Amino acid sequence: MQLAQQGDNGDYLIAPDPKAVRLTRTVTGFDHTGAATEIAVIEERPLTIFLNGQEIVTAMTIGDYPDYLALGFLRNQGMLGSGDVVTGVDYDEELETVVVRTEASTNHEEKLKKKTRTSGCAVGTVFGDMMEGLDGLTLPATPVRTSDLYALAATINRTPSLYLEAGAIHGTVLCQGNRPLVYMEDVGRHNAVDKIAGWMMSTGTEAEDKILYTTGRLTSEMVIKTAMMGIPALASRSGFTAWGVEIAREVGLTLIGRMRGQRFVCLSGEDRLVRDADPTAVPEDAARHRRKGARA
Amino acid sequence: MQLAQQGDNGDYLIAPDPKAVRLTRTVTGFDHTGAATEIAVIEERPLTIFLNGQEIVTAMTIGDYPDYLALGFLRNQGMLGSGDVVTGVDYDEELETVVVRTEASTNHEEKLKKKTRTSGCAVGTVFGDMMEGLDGLTLPATPVRTSDLYALAATINRTPSLYLEAGAIHGTVLCQGNRPLVYMEDVGRHNAVDKIAGWMMSTGTEAEDKILYTTGRLTSEMVIKTAMMGIPALASRSGFTAWGVEIAREVGLTLIGRMRGQRFVCLSGEDRLVRDADPTAVPEDAARHRRKGARA
Repeated sequence: MQLAQQGDNGDYLIAPDPKAVRLTRTVTGFDHTGAATEIAVIEERPLTIFLNGQEIVTAMTIGDYPDYLALGFLRNQGMLGSGDVVTGVDYDEELETVVVRTEASTNHEEKLKKKTRTSGCAVGTVFGDMMEGLDGLTLPATPVRTSDLYALAATINRTPSLYLEAGAIHGTVLCQGNRPLVYMEDVGRHNAVDKIAGWMMSTGTEAEDKILYTTGRLTSEMVIKTAMMGIPALASRSGFTAWGVEIAREVGLTLIGRMRGQRFVCLSGEDRLVRDADPTAVPEDAARHRRKGARA
Repeated sequence: MQLAQQGDNGDYLIAPDPKAVRLTRTVTGFDHTGAATEIAVIEERPLTIFLNGQEIVTAMTIGDYPDYLALGFLRNQGMLGSGDVVTGVDYDEELETVVVRTEASTNHEEKLKKKTRTSGCAVGTVFGDMMEGLDGLTLPATPVRTSDLYALAATINRTPSLYLEAGAIHGTVLCQGNRPLVYMEDVGRHNAVDKIAGWMMSTGTEAEDKILYTTGRLTSEMVIKTAMMGIPALASRSGFTAWGVEIAREVGLTLIGRMRGQRFVCLSGEDRLVRDADPTAVPEDAARHRRKGARA
């Protein structure tokens, strides 16, 4: 497991490491003028996650923080409950596997085994389980200051990242007030948020005063994961899906999308927004900081 | 199955239908000034795909062209071979299922059943099968004109689409020369390309003179799907992953990324590029046509 970085970039506990050798590769291509050009591209590796003796899933990942990814994935799928005691997380770089061991074997392994036998694929099953986990869930009504949202976006957008280095990657940031704490990136759509969930589990971090910021779209799956993690606010530069909005309203998640410069749209939890910032004082994004998913 | 549209937007056989009632929903939110605002958001529905008696996967989709999605998914996963005779495709809107029936039951169902029993989830399995399907595959060395690439990007970017209407969606376009033929969009990452594969199967469309244009990233999975479809060129506004580049080079897929205005990078198949356009004559993108994934 890599050590947390601290200090620069606005006091992150974990910040992206765009210069890490294992995460990007330089390849030679040709640009529009026909000139040879070297560009950095993101690595993408399979990682197979086991829960005790049971193989659960093979995820495509950049390969940093495999321990957090495995823990967070299992937690967000509801396969690892708050009552389960994790006795070990063993990552084997060569075999590209990570094994999460618990004190008592969980019933989730049995459940998964049974369901996959009848359904043929865990994709639907896993999703069904996630929806199940939301039954009756209501998130705490934590206030969200717009001044914090603007400050977070500004800090995150200028943080050196694999996205700025090589593109083709998603980022998710766990934040508290106006401070981004843990900034994870991954080529896999949901791995970045799973790595944050794994970090929160490992460190026993409370969720109720946090905001999750993502570069990706606010789909049902993203909303469900955030709710499963107990985080009461989710913000993104990208847009929404109808089901994502519906679930956010059901569980009381503050949902903010299309953040760009001074603009944003709040589609759930408006009553918790503390509008303490003057939007006209917020500068427009610099072109180089425009992230994917941003819309004019 | 919806009827193909023809005529406007540069002669598409199928173009996006951004005004279709079922594909977006209007929701009320609040903008950065605190004013109530109505925005269109993308619908997202589960669709469970069966192959004969076997449940294969539940995909999250916008819900148009479920027949093409099911056929293309099964084809791209290698579960439906060129020798398999499809006797029926039954979509049930209420049950959110689509059943693909073949004359002889395929061994893929048996294979899937066996593999999922041991692996617990079809995600890894399915991916393994896809890699298997690439063994020894070499795509035809079809030339690709840069004048066509620029013309395609210009036409596609100004085509009315769900992306321009509501955002939060991926698009993939099957093209021939400078003409975009079939433009599919979907909230699911790979559904758009699967729908194109299903359309090609249903219409018996040849692949070897086609170009696939996508708004998404050029990951391993995207490259594998394109190769499985027999299409020799893949272009995108987004970036690359290292494994995507590696596989493209192995199978001889022309791979062009980071297309924006006059700029692009070719990371595989440079020898097939016919550089017949003057890049300096290509106008910059208008801001409203900038797609997600575009980088300065």
